[in-house]
Amino acid sequence: MDDQRAVAVWRDGAAVRLPADQPVVTAFDAGLARGDGVFESVLVAGGATPRLGDHLVRLQRSTRLLDLPPVPDEAWRALVAAATEGWPDGVEGVCRLFLTRGEGAAPTALALLAPVGEDVLRQRRDGVRVVALTYGLAAGVRAGAPWLLGGAKTLSYAVNMAAQRHAHAVGADDVVFTSAEGQLLEGPTSTVVWAAGGTLHTPPADLGILAGTTQARLFAAAEADGWPTAVTPGTVADLHSADAVWLLSGIRGAAAVTSLDGVERGDAGLTARVQELLSRP
Amino acid sequence: MDDQRAVAVWRDGAAVRLPADQPVVTAFDAGLARGDGVFESVLVAGGATPRLGDHLVRLQRSTRLLDLPPVPDEAWRALVAAATEGWPDGVEGVCRLFLTRGEGAAPTALALLAPVGEDVLRQRRDGVRVVALTYGLAAGVRAGAPWLLGGAKTLSYAVNMAAQRHAHAVGADDVVFTSAEGQLLEGPTSTVVWAAGGTLHTPPADLGILAGTTQARLFAAAEADGWPTAVTPGTVADLHSADAVWLLSGIRGAAAVTSLDGVERGDAGLTARVQELLSRP
Repeated sequence: MDDQRAVAVWRDGAAVRLPADQPVVTAFDAGLARGDGVFESVLVAGGATPRLGDHLVRLQRSTRLLDLPPVPDEAWRALVAAATEGWPDGVEGVCRLFLTRGEGAAPTALALLAPVGEDVLRQRRDGVRVVALTYGLAAGVRAGAPWLLGGAKTLSYAVNMAAQRHAHAVGADDVVFTSAEGQLLEGPTSTVVWAAGGTLHTPPADLGILAGTTQARLFAAAEADGWPTAVTPGTVADLHSADAVWLLSGIRGAAAVTSLDGVERGDAGLTARVQELLSRP
Repeated sequence: MDDQRAVAVWRDGAAVRLPADQPVVTAFDAGLARGDGVFESVLVAGGATPRLGDHLVRLQRSTRLLDLPPVPDEAWRALVAAATEGWPDGVEGVCRLFLTRGEGAAPTALALLAPVGEDVLRQRRDGVRVVALTYGLAAGVRAGAPWLLGGAKTLSYAVNMAAQRHAHAVGADDVVFTSAEGQLLEGPTSTVVWAAGGTLHTPPADLGILAGTTQARLFAAAEADGWPTAVTPGTVADLHSADAVWLLSGIRGAAAVTSLDGVERGDAGLTARVQELLSRP
């Protein structure tokens, strides 16, 4: 079987590499039964994971927000090392880290690795057609309601996946979620960034959206390059009038939005600059 | 190992019974990675599952709402039969049915069985202390936004579990969710029912809440017994002024709410009547 994928599971204090098609989670694990766990998706390029540190910071934050037993960074690094061992330098991979509540006392920690999909590579190159969909939540509610798990990257992504299926059904590739009041939030698996008035903008994380690791890296590199950045509440109208709009994520990078709710749009030639900034070490 | 639990998985057109502690899902199954799947929890009593039909109706509805490949009722019944084979008549069990999107083409269908927990039996007998928490969603939004998966019982229950942990942290047992506007919705794993003005009330399902199988059974038995029922939008204030409030679910049955947001409350002696109605065949 030509299975490029890999899996490593934390057992008895060590990372254990297993065949990718071997089941690793019991039916009683709360990660399966309740989506009760957290995750990260880390890019593997040139056989390495240069952004792993940023993702571990967010994974530890998600772990705290869900009151999961902490797993030290060294254990995660050992899992990533076990999963990526022998991975070919020339193939981009997505390494996912999962921490689930497990059964009773013992949480489940694992890393898996698979090649980056053709559709992701195509969207990175050619951009994405996007529809705006409501997420139904009032914009400010998650800041005062920790049980809504704002800011945590959980395994409960059924709505995110359903929104992407809805986008595909209407001829689009991806989604920008808005609050009940029409405030810009985020994509199902990405951060929204737009260029307007000579500045890069992204919505405030205190809306309960995920703090984007790629967005943070882009903004730091842009500031260092003399391109001002701002955290700005926005609406879909702001995206229509922007010079360029991107969906940012660790695997896909900066995907230019080429149409929004069926309206074609350009990027004012800015995508090349954004992608160059993201390619800096 | 004294493991009372059981698991059965659908493989190559048949239900296969496996040891309960044997992993059954790979790391690449979307049910684990994304909470992308649906489930039901079915009571096993006297070695039988008399309410299985009601749960299969809802499971098939959830399957359609998530665009999952349908699994016929006969397959589910075979899985339940395999999981419950040899289960002792004198032990109440919870049989969970999971359908996940799996990896690529093949969905994962399985049934698992475990004894009903002591805490559940205690709450059925002694009632529950409840806190009202916002679910953050605008009341009407899910009716027009199918990607929010209103009415589907999905594996993405991280928020439901976090809300119950929050309840425990403030000295309560369970939760009643309200909409952003303060409309009563449902519990994280239950339907809200209250008695007021000689009538049994429950919130409308078009709020995107789950249609309760136990609530439907109670209302049918109550109507047949001359106790009027109504689908009524309500608020937490309506619960405070009600004669009695219950959280209804298939496993726990009717759990009387004994305190709401720290305010003790009675049940006007009605819980016995509700439980008797639910015990009818």
